[in-house]
Amino acid sequence: MNKNRAARVQSPEAVGMERQDRYFLSYRQIHETVQQLARRIEATGFDPDVIVAIGTGGFIPARILKTFINRPIYTVGISYYGLDNVPKATPQTIQWIDEVERKLAGKRVLLVDEVDDSRVTLEYCLKELLSHGPTEIAVMVLHNKNKEKRGKLPPEIRHYFAGREMEDRWICYPWDAEDILFHEDRARAME
Amino acid sequence: MNKNRAARVQSPEAVGMERQDRYFLSYRQIHETVQQLARRIEATGFDPDVIVAIGTGGFIPARILKTFINRPIYTVGISYYGLDNVPKATPQTIQWIDEVERKLAGKRVLLVDEVDDSRVTLEYCLKELLSHGPTEIAVMVLHNKNKEKRGKLPPEIRHYFAGREMEDRWICYPWDAEDILFHEDRARAME
Repeated sequence: MNKNRAARVQSPEAVGMERQDRYFLSYRQIHETVQQLARRIEATGFDPDVIVAIGTGGFIPARILKTFINRPIYTVGISYYGLDNVPKATPQTIQWIDEVERKLAGKRVLLVDEVDDSRVTLEYCLKELLSHGPTEIAVMVLHNKNKEKRGKLPPEIRHYFAGREMEDRWICYPWDAEDILFHEDRARAME
Repeated sequence: MNKNRAARVQSPEAVGMERQDRYFLSYRQIHETVQQLARRIEATGFDPDVIVAIGTGGFIPARILKTFINRPIYTVGISYYGLDNVPKATPQTIQWIDEVERKLAGKRVLLVDEVDDSRVTLEYCLKELLSHGPTEIAVMVLHNKNKEKRGKLPPEIRHYFAGREMEDRWICYPWDAEDILFHEDRARAME
């Protein structure tokens, strides 16, 4: 899901944020980060039966991951934001996996999202999924923001994979780019 | 979904297919194709309430589309291939949208996939979704392969958007790349 959404309403410029306070990441960098994550996951011996992508931020990382770890992808859709783009106190499910969730019993699940920001979404999803008796759930995120976390990882979570540790800055993902040429140029300049 | 899967088992090299018989597409090209599609969709006046992505091929196009047409994304997972990667006679649902499907009643739906190959997947999904009483369903695919189609678009479908018309060649999508640098180089060389 897009944790940047609320902030997008107040654009980075509007809150006085300079370009250098943002990370611009190219599709190539994202692809390479996922590939590296797949290698790290395999190296631990954690072998998921299914991938669960948190929508919509996890869709692209999960689909790239499937190239390296070929498992079925289920999706769950969650949003913190109402139609007015104002954050809500608790996540709203957009789509849940319903009968699929019951199929998670006895399975090793790899939960995928793009960024671990406040960790509230991850905690919410993990608690929901854990209640359906999977053998194990591991977490994979492209980026973990180093900041105080309002959410907690449940103690059952033994594997947590973050592609990169990031300072608590605004992350501009390529799929959010309204001008992809500008975006990729900025990403190249920051490498 | 990955209609190339069965062919991947028999690699293009194995069946004597030369590199020039394949299309290599970069992430940037995909992003730009989605952006152009969004403009064309808006120009027709078709204003979807929800996006439904066919997994897993539709995940990335749908997520990029959301940047330009910001609607909730639901996903349906379908596969023609069993665990043995042998095509099945009929699609197997991986994940269906269940109670969400019932929410499609009275809604304008934009169904998204990466490629219209045999059209069988599209026909299957469209018939299923149409049975739940949406106001309208439109189709968006990145690429339409010009070939004889085994599936048919139901007569209810008034809008069909294909980003590019392609000859019936193997399409190499960037998210399937095991070596993204090589892939993007090839895509650049083909521009």
